[in-house]
Amino acid sequence: MIGIDWGTTSFRAYRLAADGRVLDRLERAGGILGIPAGGFPAALRAAIGPWLGAGEAEILMCGMVGSRQGWVEAPYLPCPAGPAEIAAATIEVPFEGARVRLLPGLSTRDGAGVPDVMRGEETKLVGLLAAGVEGLVCLPGTHSKWARLQGGRIAGFATHMTGEVRAVLLEHGILGRLAKPGRSEAAFARGVARSGDPGGLLHHVFGTRALGLMGDLAAEATADYLSGLLIGHEIRAAWPRGAGSDEAVHLAASAVLAEGYEAALGQLGATVIRHGDDVVAAGLAAVRAGRGGVR
Amino acid sequence: MIGIDWGTTSFRAYRLAADGRVLDRLERAGGILGIPAGGFPAALRAAIGPWLGAGEAEILMCGMVGSRQGWVEAPYLPCPAGPAEIAAATIEVPFEGARVRLLPGLSTRDGAGVPDVMRGEETKLVGLLAAGVEGLVCLPGTHSKWARLQGGRIAGFATHMTGEVRAVLLEHGILGRLAKPGRSEAAFARGVARSGDPGGLLHHVFGTRALGLMGDLAAEATADYLSGLLIGHEIRAAWPRGAGSDEAVHLAASAVLAEGYEAALGQLGATVIRHGDDVVAAGLAAVRAGRGGVR
Repeated sequence: MIGIDWGTTSFRAYRLAADGRVLDRLERAGGILGIPAGGFPAALRAAIGPWLGAGEAEILMCGMVGSRQGWVEAPYLPCPAGPAEIAAATIEVPFEGARVRLLPGLSTRDGAGVPDVMRGEETKLVGLLAAGVEGLVCLPGTHSKWARLQGGRIAGFATHMTGEVRAVLLEHGILGRLAKPGRSEAAFARGVARSGDPGGLLHHVFGTRALGLMGDLAAEATADYLSGLLIGHEIRAAWPRGAGSDEAVHLAASAVLAEGYEAALGQLGATVIRHGDDVVAAGLAAVRAGRGGVR
Repeated sequence: MIGIDWGTTSFRAYRLAADGRVLDRLERAGGILGIPAGGFPAALRAAIGPWLGAGEAEILMCGMVGSRQGWVEAPYLPCPAGPAEIAAATIEVPFEGARVRLLPGLSTRDGAGVPDVMRGEETKLVGLLAAGVEGLVCLPGTHSKWARLQGGRIAGFATHMTGEVRAVLLEHGILGRLAKPGRSEAAFARGVARSGDPGGLLHHVFGTRALGLMGDLAAEATADYLSGLLIGHEIRAAWPRGAGSDEAVHLAASAVLAEGYEAALGQLGATVIRHGDDVVAAGLAAVRAGRGGVR
């Protein structure tokens, strides 16, 4: 089969063996934002034509390709949900020469009834479930997801807009005028520590500017201080502590993001269990198996 | 005398009587960002030439005109500080035909040693001090200031980046793609209420998007929901409650901002004492009096 993670700005495809092994892979920049109306079948064929030519006839796709802005909308499926429910909620789209299905995103509601949504990350979570993972999972990113895996299903989750808030503040806010390119692990750790002080996030973020103006933070350390501050706030809100047990956190991320989150989680006392970023291929294979088993 | 509040994007000038009454005023868009290097004396003369021609010979200026990006930097003065200390820290700049002085900004440090700064708002606070105000003051804005007035001086303050975070999220983030122009008091109140739920600001902000995607929040109500959410977080962090007394909040803001902050403060149980937005002229007069008395 062919498994595809087709997001807003990226396209990742995997040629998978019947047992889920990755036989081949390709990645390109062609995210859904660049696809004209009605252009999805042609874009798909252009990307994976050789695999189709070699006889592949089943394609499973996850990510924003199944959103309102994508090929066809595959409506959000409410939690709890596992590979079987996700497989049953796939949407088939017409495509000559292969069976093409889109995975749904997931939705959940918190105690106050406020909804949350994911699209693409559910497939990574299914990949972790397939590897036997249970408990609390963090998938860092523009919109970080914290999910609970329980009984072979995704019980619920919460999204934190950490990466986007960092990006808009640095690219369009006053902190961007202050910051210069550079890295500083010490500043990152200082930001993580600051996130535990009173005053709140909106005050702490302004403090980044005040520290710079008063000569207490180098311009080259501004971005990493801000990262530590925001990731620290995210973890303190998302990671339940002090209730008798400090739960281990399963972390699945690209190397760059994993490094920062692992450092911050460690600084705050969490045990981290790292997983690769490539769990999406395992998730696509598991969803296929969840529906019809391995054919 | 002439009092001027010269900010990043605006220029407000007051012709003041010896007793501080406003005799005349003018406002223009010519903020310091639009002034070329060395261009401040000419820009000042162009703006208030008629008043100089009428015999005014003393000019006090506050705001970003006294910053590193302004005419000359008037260094930050540490809190606690009142009109006398501020007057003593003014910086005189050469200008033919009048004595021109720039007011310093203020700095403070919190219990953790993290600095905070203001420039321009200290003059509004001096205006409130001149009117006999003591206690907790909120000056809402792009960078909202919460200050404590005590014994005729500004004891300390904290800045919250509320307005800027709102603006960059709506203008450059994913919420902006969702939001449509519109007003909704009910959505604003819902955002204020949401700010008290668990989960943290970064999660609550993403919830704005999820509410929209799930059809639980109209596109026209998105901006006001986000405002209520952020202002709610600001107030909950800045307004000390539950320690025996719920302190009244002095609010000085333009009509538009005051409306939202008054509603949110009221919703959270605070007594609000409103002051006009025009306290800066009173502050400029008080700083002059604080130094040399009325001549």
